[in-house]
Amino acid sequence: MPFTSYYLSPEGELRSELSNEEIKAAFKSNQGLLWVDVGDTTKEDGEFLEQTFGFHPLAVEDCVSTNIHPPKVDDFEEYLFIVVHGVNHAGESDVVETAELAVFLGANFVVSNHNLPLYSVESVKHSVENNTRVMRRGADFLAHTLIDALIDNIMPTIDRMTEIADDIEEQVVQNPQQPTLEAILKLKRSATHLHRVMAPQREVLNRISRGDYRVVREDAKIFYRDIYDHVVRIEDLNQTVRDMTDNALATYLSAVANRQNEVMKVLSIVAAIFLPLTLIAGIYGMNFENMPELKTSWGYYAVLGFIGAVIIVIMWLFWSKGWVNWGRRRIFGIRPLTIEMERLRGYTRHFRKVPRKKS
Amino acid sequence: MPFTSYYLSPEGELRSELSNEEIKAAFKSNQGLLWVDVGDTTKEDGEFLEQTFGFHPLAVEDCVSTNIHPPKVDDFEEYLFIVVHGVNHAGESDVVETAELAVFLGANFVVSNHNLPLYSVESVKHSVENNTRVMRRGADFLAHTLIDALIDNIMPTIDRMTEIADDIEEQVVQNPQQPTLEAILKLKRSATHLHRVMAPQREVLNRISRGDYRVVREDAKIFYRDIYDHVVRIEDLNQTVRDMTDNALATYLSAVANRQNEVMKVLSIVAAIFLPLTLIAGIYGMNFENMPELKTSWGYYAVLGFIGAVIIVIMWLFWSKGWVNWGRRRIFGIRPLTIEMERLRGYTRHFRKVPRKKS
Amino acid sequence: MPFTSYYLSPEGELRSELSNEEIKAAFKSNQGLLWVDVGDTTKEDGEFLEQTFGFHPLAVEDCVSTNIHPPKVDDFEEYLFIVVHGVNHAGESDVVETAELAVFLGANFVVSNHNLPLYSVESVKHSVENNTRVMRRGADFLAHTLIDALIDNIMPTIDRMTEIADDIEEQVVQNPQQPTLEAILKLKRSATHLHRVMAPQREVLNRISRGDYRVVREDAKIFYRDIYDHVVRIEDLNQTVRDMTDNALATYLSAVANRQNEVMKVLSIVAAIFLPLTLIAGIYGMNFENMPELKTSWGYYAVLGFIGAVIIVIMWLFWSKGWVNWGRRRIFGIRPLTIEMERLRGYTRHFRKVPRKKS
Amino acid sequence: MPFTSYYLSPEGELRSELSNEEIKAAFKSNQGLLWVDVGDTTKEDGEFLEQTFGFHPLAVEDCVSTNIHPPKVDDFEEYLFIVVHGVNHAGESDVVETAELAVFLGANFVVSNHNLPLYSVESVKHSVENNTRVMRRGADFLAHTLIDALIDNIMPTIDRMTEIADDIEEQVVQNPQQPTLEAILKLKRSATHLHRVMAPQREVLNRISRGDYRVVREDAKIFYRDIYDHVVRIEDLNQTVRDMTDNALATYLSAVANRQNEVMKVLSIVAAIFLPLTLIAGIYGMNFENMPELKTSWGYYAVLGFIGAVIIVIMWLFWSKGWVNWGRRRIFGIRPLTIEMERLRGYTRHFRKVPRKKS
Amino acid sequence: MPFTSYYLSPEGELRSELSNEEIKAAFKSNQGLLWVDVGDTTKEDGEFLEQTFGFHPLAVEDCVSTNIHPPKVDDFEEYLFIVVHGVNHAGESDVVETAELAVFLGANFVVSNHNLPLYSVESVKHSVENNTRVMRRGADFLAHTLIDALIDNIMPTIDRMTEIADDIEEQVVQNPQQPTLEAILKLKRSATHLHRVMAPQREVLNRISRGDYRVVREDAKIFYRDIYDHVVRIEDLNQTVRDMTDNALATYLSAVANRQNEVMKVLSIVAAIFLPLTLIAGIYGMNFENMPELKTSWGYYAVLGFIGAVIIVIMWLFWSKGWVNWGRRRIFGIRPLTIEMERLRGYTRHFRKVPRKKS
Repeated sequence: MPFTSYYLSPEGELRSELSNEEIKAAFKSNQGLLWVDVGDTTKEDGEFLEQTFGFHPLAVEDCVSTNIHPPKVDDFEEYLFIVVHGVNHAGESDVVETAELAVFLGANFVVSNHNLPLYSVESVKHSVENNTRVMRRGADFLAHTLIDALIDNIMPTIDRMTEIADDIEEQVVQNPQQPTLEAILKLKRSATHLHRVMAPQREVLNRISRGDYRVVREDAKIFYRDIYDHVVRIEDLNQTVRDMTDNALATYLSAVANRQNEVMKVLSIVAAIFLPLTLIAGIYGMNFENMPELKTSWGYYAVLGFIGAVIIVIMWLFWSKGWVNWGRRRIFGIRPLTIEMERLRGYTRHFRKVPRKKS
Repeated sequence: MPFTSYYLSPEGELRSELSNEEIKAAFKSNQGLLWVDVGDTTKEDGEFLEQTFGFHPLAVEDCVSTNIHPPKVDDFEEYLFIVVHGVNHAGESDVVETAELAVFLGANFVVSNHNLPLYSVESVKHSVENNTRVMRRGADFLAHTLIDALIDNIMPTIDRMTEIADDIEEQVVQNPQQPTLEAILKLKRSATHLHRVMAPQREVLNRISRGDYRVVREDAKIFYRDIYDHVVRIEDLNQTVRDMTDNALATYLSAVANRQNEVMKVLSIVAAIFLPLTLIAGIYGMNFENMPELKTSWGYYAVLGFIGAVIIVIMWLFWSKGWVNWGRRRIFGIRPLTIEMERLRGYTRHFRKVPRKKS
Repeated sequence: MPFTSYYLSPEGELRSELSNEEIKAAFKSNQGLLWVDVGDTTKEDGEFLEQTFGFHPLAVEDCVSTNIHPPKVDDFEEYLFIVVHGVNHAGESDVVETAELAVFLGANFVVSNHNLPLYSVESVKHSVENNTRVMRRGADFLAHTLIDALIDNIMPTIDRMTEIADDIEEQVVQNPQQPTLEAILKLKRSATHLHRVMAPQREVLNRISRGDYRVVREDAKIFYRDIYDHVVRIEDLNQTVRDMTDNALATYLSAVANRQNEVMKVLSIVAAIFLPLTLIAGIYGMNFENMPELKTSWGYYAVLGFIGAVIIVIMWLFWSKGWVNWGRRRIFGIRPLTIEMERLRGYTRHFRKVPRKKS
Repeated sequence: MPFTSYYLSPEGELRSELSNEEIKAAFKSNQGLLWVDVGDTTKEDGEFLEQTFGFHPLAVEDCVSTNIHPPKVDDFEEYLFIVVHGVNHAGESDVVETAELAVFLGANFVVSNHNLPLYSVESVKHSVENNTRVMRRGADFLAHTLIDALIDNIMPTIDRMTEIADDIEEQVVQNPQQPTLEAILKLKRSATHLHRVMAPQREVLNRISRGDYRVVREDAKIFYRDIYDHVVRIEDLNQTVRDMTDNALATYLSAVANRQNEVMKVLSIVAAIFLPLTLIAGIYGMNFENMPELKTSWGYYAVLGFIGAVIIVIMWLFWSKGWVNWGRRRIFGIRPLTIEMERLRGYTRHFRKVPRKKS
Repeated sequence: MPFTSYYLSPEGELRSELSNEEIKAAFKSNQGLLWVDVGDTTKEDGEFLEQTFGFHPLAVEDCVSTNIHPPKVDDFEEYLFIVVHGVNHAGESDVVETAELAVFLGANFVVSNHNLPLYSVESVKHSVENNTRVMRRGADFLAHTLIDALIDNIMPTIDRMTEIADDIEEQVVQNPQQPTLEAILKLKRSATHLHRVMAPQREVLNRISRGDYRVVREDAKIFYRDIYDHVVRIEDLNQTVRDMTDNALATYLSAVANRQNEVMKVLSIVAAIFLPLTLIAGIYGMNFENMPELKTSWGYYAVLGFIGAVIIVIMWLFWSKGWVNWGRRRIFGIRPLTIEMERLRGYTRHFRKVPRKKS
């Protein structure tokens, strides 16, 4: 496929849509800044990269293959080969997936490669076309811009995951069903996957921001350090999502157990009321000839009254044990703990109203 | 917004409420000690900081942005850029949140930045206004005072969390309800969040107290080491809270299972007593013509007696299996283990012959 | 057993099926490249290796013994002794097992040893026989080819495990049975075992690709680095399988609890409907002489109507509590969460204004 | 409060109960060995320490404050400031708590501080009073003796915890109740707390035994190494206690589930026997005019016989499914596994042919 | 107690059963190789070791005391003091325990100490008595032989644990009872304990095989490296046992839940069938005067038929929900997953029948 290519000549002129010959010439001039972006790399593209730029066959192989490559930075002296991951916005999966961006970073060229479409790369192209400032600051800064945009694009996904985690947290209390569990586990898998990609990514950016790579100038390192900080923040927020899913899981399982409890209680109460009463009715349904109560005129009404009394007594017993009239007890249950959390805030909020005297 | 600013001139005179021009002059004089505190930093504030003090744009960007920035220390030779977290006392969340304090620490200036109101900073301002001693000891000591106050302010929250954990522990045994679970999980999330902030914070303070930063003098390091010790202590107490929540969770789940057990027992006992008796009543309610017992005068009373006997026998069976008369068994259950803990203390208390003096 | 042996003479001529004497001569010549492959090593083979090549007895012992040897690299100055693991395709176990490949790598010889048949070694033999290119690049490259083929052969097993994990995930929701659990646990054990083998393997390849071993030339290291990357990728995919089994386990246990819940609900509903009605029937089956209703002509129909009404009321009560008419509620349950995941994708897909080109 | 103080003059004479002036003189002489022990340190004590010995204010602050200070060692060139933890034998808590011992170790003085009474310090005082040998070996050895005694005093508590864990393990199988769970969780918290104190403690002793501290002589290091070994041993035993509590928790939860199972079985058996029989009795209690069986003379006895037969058949069904007659099956269940453990011992005991001598 | 002692004179003559004087003389000669083995060390033995060999009192103390000492290596320049652990074959515990072997390794002497009888030491004595080869290779090799034999003796225990884990795995599916759980937890504790001993042991052997200890010659290090590999293998197999116990625990808990499910199903089915029917019988047992059905001649038979029909319909309902006729469904459940595992093997086994073309 045709490459997207930009060349900022030493005179500060920006050319784009270079032919393969022009790319070769620009690379050989060792001047200005050349950026070639390759999407959906074919075998032919790989050969072109290998021949034109003299990239190592193994690095090119990583670009061509559609396998997943964990984040890494390889130092080939003349250039760095960096693999970083962003969120794959093109996928259709229910679970968050990642997309790779491979960057060859040389003294005056950047070759970026990605087999999936990346919004971050598109946005950098857009800003390069509008304004050459990004390219004027050098190859290491251009590579930083690409990687930074990629990492920043993870944030909305994290925000979305946090929102979903909030929704799940609510749903898990109000109406926990099997799909709730599936949503919890999908979110957990998303967070776990993101964590596994972010951890080596952080290491890669740490090494670039601290390491002694020839092609990254001293004053560009702080910018990579900044991306490192972003990755740490993403990891942190992602960890919060993981904690929330763990809590949601605990709440879900507890809610399932509680619902079962309620089912059991209904059963127990029904049985405790009606089994004894059925026995009483059964007794007076016996056909013994000598059952004096049967002959009294008030017997039937006495039994009906007794049945009513038994129902009232047993209901009262269950009520006193806290098995019925949930509403009231639940309010009792909620109150103190809400107050607890209130107290937590209130206490700490006001505890140093008086100024601190001896520092 | 207007900055809060203090300048201790080399002559030991304290001025406050400096204009922007005075701040620039004080900074350029390279003498005395200048402290500027910025709350709720706007884009304009950021530009002022960048232009007046020559701070790195990325560091200023961290101050202006309202994102969360994990604790870190960046060395810019001329100054350190330190981000530390305290507890956010202004938030309304049920979960403990953290508030950032960013500090630029130079040889003779301190610029502090926080987008949320911080009591610790207010208390330091108050003591500076009362007494210039804090500022006379130098920029590194002033920065230490700010960070120390921030970290110390976490303690009451930890204390509060411990109290809540105690309350939960009690409630989880006496009356475990769904809100109890929610309180447990909220507390756990608070503790986990605090842990995630404290771990890198400890690293930051360790690096300042051991590292070779130009702007932190040798004899000031021990004071940062002291804050490091406080962070370790906070982490320790926080870990205890996490353990307590884990235990509370286990107790809660066990209590739910136990309650279900009790519900089931009531049901089983009721069924075991009344189903057989209902059968007996049913048998004598059959309409067979040839049922000799029906014609006896004592039959009815015999059946009533038999029913009473069956109830007594079955109750006794359940009692002997430990299903009823909980009170007694529970006391048996508690006793030995309470004694265990007594023995734990007692044994260790007296195991050395040396008498306990009023040392 | 006879060895499989190849010798590429300095003149570039390939000989195979060498006699023991020829092997000794080729080894002593210190020229060309000698490859000896030993399968199912006997004690005699071990002695031959020890005498001919002067290998250390302990390394030879590792080859002869059928115990499992964790991945390692031992440096004997003149040669490296490398143990790596692939998947054992010959085993009959339900759980994925690993097979060892031991490689002695010298300046101009490679001795490979494996007590189980390995497809990867066979395929390398095949390509050597077709084309001497592999051997012309030197001993370190030949050893790389052997190890690379072994590691690459793990991939289809990982793919298969992922497919099984997908199948399990489906089955666990639709029809969770005890065998499902067994399949989950077997898959988990496979993944755990693979993880335990891969972790030290990665370390071994890291050391070869970075270390200062005499027999691995500088420009061959990058090829070992490439295998290292493959191992990292395998670990990553394997970790995904482990996560999926953990989730499947949680879903399984939750599904078991849910099924129990359904069983309980049927029981409770049946009891709640029929126990009260049986009491009513029992009351009018009592033999009191004075029961006015019995004499009315409409009494029987009134009771039948009352019974019908009670059934309807109780069913409605359960329906309003969400205990019956599952179909509708489940749809309600699924919808919002599916929409959630849709929103996750949709939101992130469109959040940057840059249009999606056919990049 | 008055200090407990000892001074071993260079002439080998031991004086005790020194006045403040004598302590100052002894410290300034730079000869002999001075030991001052401060319990329950007041603010005035702190000032005395600061002025007399010139200790750093932050170290003194750690002594005066009643906060918990994690184990640490601070090097102030002239002296070390060491904080170590032992078990608090004075506390009344159900959970094991720790007590701090702070030691200032100089070339010829030791100042120990503890706000809780410590038996270990009392015992060292006692042995110093009886025999000056401990003090004659120098300040580093005296400090070692204090720390060693403190650590050794943890052992009986660990032993006691192991015994309680054994008791719990027994009780959890025989009669698991809610208090059992509470005991398990308390023990777990004790073990976790001890673990959290021991981990940094080990690090502190490792650093003293390996580090280059001026005041610890080369041949004294091995003694600190010995304490390090004790801490490792304590950690190991403590870990066993934690494992036992984890296992006890699993057994407890399983026992609760099993008990519920038994309750359910009783219910199911009762229902399965009596519900069908009640139906039969109910059928023959119907008032149809045309029910031929009712008129036979043997009908009643046939029904009674049928009822008896049904009871026997259902009991047999449950027995064959293993729901009743537990005794027998449980024996079957225990046997093979006890034999397993027997075989484990037996097998390994005899596996080498070498006869077991009375070595 | 008398020591077991061997002395290989420089002339290659082996003497055994040396007197204390002879031991002293042999040690002082600094020639040949002296091996003293002490079992069940008394205080007097300790004093003899201290005086004769000049061992450090703390090391000797470790030999005399019966406490557990974690694996370690202490370097005393003239000699190494090594503590390693093997399996205690003499113990009577249900849980695998470990036995210590302490070795003093000098240039030309080895002193081994163990308070429990060790088969490995006996077997080394036996081979020394038969053949002096072991002693002729030097002190470091003799110590290696002792440690190697000790570690190798762990293997049969591990094998046995694996077999028990297999048995448990089978039993947990077929007949899970409380004793099964106890066996699982005992095995888990054994594996955990072994793990805790093996981890530092590996570190000790790593240090000996890599470290610069004077008394271990360069070419002896590879032998210690070999023991290191064995320890790694033991850890690996032990980890497999731990995984199997974790899986067995999950299966056990799931099996308990499943059994409860079956109990509940029996109850629900019985109730769902007989409660409605009893109501019907109850209705026709009512004593209303106006119940037209009662007077029909077919009424009784209609009710009987209706009862039969209801039983059939309800049974069919349960069957269609998969609550009865387990046999068929279980087969359905097992099949696909067994096929899964078959497919796993089959697929990978045949996937590269065709040789790999382009390596």
